[in-house]
Amino acid sequence: MKKILTLIFMTGFSVAAIAQNEDSVFLRRLANEILLNSKAYENLRVLTKTIGGRLAGSPQMVKAEAWGLSAMKAANADAAWLQQCMVPHWVRGGKDEATAEWQGMKAGQKTTAGSKAKLDVIALGNSMGSIKPLKAEVIEIKDFADLESKKDIVKDKIVFYNYKFDPTFVRTFQAYGDAGRYRREGPSRAAKYGAKAVIVRSISGSTDNNPHTGSTTYNDSFAKIPAIAVGLKDAEALSKTLTSAKVNVTLHTHGKFLSDTIGHNVIGELKGSQFPNEYITVGGHLDSWDNCEGAHDDGAGCVQTIEILRAFKALGYQPKRTIRFVLFANEENGLRGGTKYAEEAQAKGEKHIFALESDAGGFTPRGFGFTSSEAQFQKIMEWKNLLSPYGASELTRGGGGADIGPLNRTQNTPVAGLQPDSQRYFDHHHARNDVFEAVNKRELELGALNMAALIYLVDKYGL
Amino acid sequence: MKKILTLIFMTGFSVAAIAQNEDSVFLRRLANEILLNSKAYENLRVLTKTIGGRLAGSPQMVKAEAWGLSAMKAANADAAWLQQCMVPHWVRGGKDEATAEWQGMKAGQKTTAGSKAKLDVIALGNSMGSIKPLKAEVIEIKDFADLESKKDIVKDKIVFYNYKFDPTFVRTFQAYGDAGRYRREGPSRAAKYGAKAVIVRSISGSTDNNPHTGSTTYNDSFAKIPAIAVGLKDAEALSKTLTSAKVNVTLHTHGKFLSDTIGHNVIGELKGSQFPNEYITVGGHLDSWDNCEGAHDDGAGCVQTIEILRAFKALGYQPKRTIRFVLFANEENGLRGGTKYAEEAQAKGEKHIFALESDAGGFTPRGFGFTSSEAQFQKIMEWKNLLSPYGASELTRGGGGADIGPLNRTQNTPVAGLQPDSQRYFDHHHARNDVFEAVNKRELELGALNMAALIYLVDKYGL
Repeated sequence: MKKILTLIFMTGFSVAAIAQNEDSVFLRRLANEILLNSKAYENLRVLTKTIGGRLAGSPQMVKAEAWGLSAMKAANADAAWLQQCMVPHWVRGGKDEATAEWQGMKAGQKTTAGSKAKLDVIALGNSMGSIKPLKAEVIEIKDFADLESKKDIVKDKIVFYNYKFDPTFVRTFQAYGDAGRYRREGPSRAAKYGAKAVIVRSISGSTDNNPHTGSTTYNDSFAKIPAIAVGLKDAEALSKTLTSAKVNVTLHTHGKFLSDTIGHNVIGELKGSQFPNEYITVGGHLDSWDNCEGAHDDGAGCVQTIEILRAFKALGYQPKRTIRFVLFANEENGLRGGTKYAEEAQAKGEKHIFALESDAGGFTPRGFGFTSSEAQFQKIMEWKNLLSPYGASELTRGGGGADIGPLNRTQNTPVAGLQPDSQRYFDHHHARNDVFEAVNKRELELGALNMAALIYLVDKYGL
Repeated sequence: MKKILTLIFMTGFSVAAIAQNEDSVFLRRLANEILLNSKAYENLRVLTKTIGGRLAGSPQMVKAEAWGLSAMKAANADAAWLQQCMVPHWVRGGKDEATAEWQGMKAGQKTTAGSKAKLDVIALGNSMGSIKPLKAEVIEIKDFADLESKKDIVKDKIVFYNYKFDPTFVRTFQAYGDAGRYRREGPSRAAKYGAKAVIVRSISGSTDNNPHTGSTTYNDSFAKIPAIAVGLKDAEALSKTLTSAKVNVTLHTHGKFLSDTIGHNVIGELKGSQFPNEYITVGGHLDSWDNCEGAHDDGAGCVQTIEILRAFKALGYQPKRTIRFVLFANEENGLRGGTKYAEEAQAKGEKHIFALESDAGGFTPRGFGFTSSEAQFQKIMEWKNLLSPYGASELTRGGGGADIGPLNRTQNTPVAGLQPDSQRYFDHHHARNDVFEAVNKRELELGALNMAALIYLVDKYGL
C-alpha cells in the first residue's frame, strides 16, 4: 500500500496531489502579492489618522462609511454599496472625570495616591451620565459573590469592582470573557442593591494606567446608574488605600442616548463565476469607540478585508462563489449591522456557505477558530498544511465573530474568526492607545494573507 | 485494543498517562508562578534603563556582569559565579556621520531628499573608522552578482549595497540570513575592487528610518575600509536620486579595536540530585550593541534565563540533573563567551546533554527549533501536547543559538532555540529603538515559561 501511494505520488497522477500543488502555487502568489503590494497599512493610516474614532451615530461614522465605499471601489470590487440600518446613537456628552478623597488621614499624609487624587477614568459605553457631580463613599467588591455578601451595605455607595484580568489564562480572550462580566453586568447588579454609581477596574492586563471603555448593559428593572472604568494603577492605589482609609469619590459623566440614526454596512462584492448564488462573507467592523483611533479594534479587520479583495483582483482571481467583503456597522454597542446583514440575506433567500471575521486585532495570525459541523471542520483540517507556511497553523473548534454570529444563527452558516496572537490586544482594546502606531505593518498583512488563503480554499472547494 | 486502551486510561494504570498528568500539573504550577510572580520584566527594566547598551569591553559590560551575578543570587541559585574570558574591545570612538550631496542638479531643485542631506547612519560593528571625513561618489550595487559585473568601476567609490530585506519570507530570520551577507561580507568584497567605503542598507523591513548596526567581518587580504548602515528611508531616497543624479557622500566614522580585555560569562547553577554530572544549559547573551538598550537583543534572553531559575527555586523544584543558567559574554562581535564555556566544559569532562538559548527577542513564543538526532527530536515531539497550552506548539528541526553552538560542535550536545514570533524583531534589532518599551511583559514571561517547561521535561526524562 505504501509503495502504491509512493508511486501515485511520484508519478503525479494523484488528483489530490495535483490540486494541493496548484493550491500551494496560488497561495504563494497570493502571499507575494500581499507582502509586496499591500495597501492595508496605508488604508489603516488614512482611516485612523484622518477619521479617527467612529462610534455609531457620530459624524466620523458617516465619514468612515464614505471612506470604506471608496476604498472598496479602489480595490476594484465588481460592485460596492452601502446597506442601510438604524444604529443607536450614544454620546459621551463631555469629559468624564473622577476624583478620590482619602478620609481619616491628616492632610499631607503620604499615601500611594495622595490625600486627594484625580483618577484616570472613562465612562462605560451606553452608560447614563451623572449629569452633575456625584459624590459617595467607595466600597470595593472583589467579585459577584462578594457583592452578594455585602448587599446590605452597598446602598448609596459607589461600588468599585476590582476584579482582575487573570494573567494565568494564556489566551487573553479567556481573561476578557471572565472579567468582562463586571463591565457588562456590574452596574445593574450594584444598582439592584441601591448603589449610586459603579467604578470598574479596566478589563486589561497592561502595565499602564489607561482606562478602557466598552459597552455595559443595563437591566431595565433597576436604576441606570453612572458607570466608569478606571486605569489599573489607579485601581491598585484605590484598593490599597481602602485597606486603611475611607475613600469618597466624586465622579462626573455625561453619557446619554440620542434618537437612533441611520448607519450603513459597507459592502464590496466579487461575483461568483460558477455558483453566484452561494455566498462567502469576510469582514470586520467599521465602528470603534470614541476615545481612540480604533486601529486594532477593528480598523485592522476592515483594511484586511479590503486587502483580500484588492489582492484577488490584482491576481485576476475569478471566484467560483460570490464573495462579499463587509465593513459592519455598530458592532461595539448594538450589533445592528451584523443583524441587518443576516436579515437581508434571509429575506432575499441568499445561501451563505461561510463567513469569516477579523476582530481580534492586527497582530501576527496564529490560526482560525471555527463554529461548524464536525464534517466541515474535518474538511478545513485537510488544508492545514497549505495554511501553516503563512502562520495560521492553529485550527481549532469554536470561534467566529460578533457580526457574523447572526448568519450562523439564522441559516446555520459555518463561521470562523481569525485568531491573531492575543497577548497585546487587551493592552489597547477600547483605550486611548489603540492607535495606528500600535499596529505592525507585517503582522497586519500576514493576517490579511491568511484570511485570503482560507477564503480561496472555501471558494474553491466549498464547505 | 481500543477498549483495552480505554480501560487503561480510565483506570489510570498507564504509567505514561500518570506521568503526563503529573507533568501537566507541574507545568500549570510553573505557569502560574511565572505569570503571577515573574521578576523578568522588572529585571529587564533595571538592565536596560540603569545600565543600557553593554558592548564587550565597555564599562557597561562590567556593570552588567555585576548586575547579572547579583540577579542570579537574588533568584536563589545554589551557586553563582563569573567565568572569565578575554573579549575583543571594539569602540565606536565618536559620532558616525554621513552627508549626501546630489550632483548635476541646480541648488534648490526638489528631490526626495534635497540637494544636500544628512543621512541617518551608524558604523557597522568591528569596522574601522575613516579617521577624517572621507568623500567619494556613490555607486549603487543591487547584489553580489551586480558587484561582480561592476567590479571595474567601483574603484575609489563608495559602494552602496541596497539589497532588500525580502518581505516574501514569512519568517523574518530567513530574510535576515539572506540580506545579512551584505553587512558581513560586503565591505571586504567591495574593498577587493578598490572601493573606499561601504554603505549598507539596514538589515530590516521596518517602516522607520533607524539605521541598524551589527558586526562585519573583514577579509585580511583587502583594505579594511569604513562601513556604515543607513536607514531604510534614506536608502530609498538615495537609490531614487541615483537614478537621475550623481551623488557624493562624505562620511566620518571613528571605529577601532583596543586591546582585548577581560569579560565574563555569568553563571548560576542548580545542582542535580540524581545525575549531578549531567548538565543542562539555558541562556542568553549579556552583551548588546552600544547604540541601544539591547532589550530584545538580548536582555530578554538574559532575564528569561534568570526567571526560569527563580521559578524553579520558588516552587522548590529539585532537578535531577545539574542546570546551568548562563548569561554569555560577547555574542555580538566575537562569541568568546560561548566558546569559553564549551572549552571549559570539555576540559573538565562535563557531560552536556542539552542546551537552550533565547536570542530571538522577547516576543510571544511560537515554538522551539532543535539541532539534535532524529531519535532525540522524536522524544521531544512526545512532549508537544504538554507545551502547546503555553504557546510553543511549533517544534521544528534546525535551530539553537550562537552561544551554545560551540557545545554542539565540541560534544554533539543537542541544542535548541526559543522561537518567538519573528515579525517585529528586525524592526528593533541593533537599532536605537531596541528599548525596554518595545518589550511586552506578558510576551516576555510566556517565553520564560515555555523555556522552563522544556528544561523541566529534559531534566526529568533526559534526551
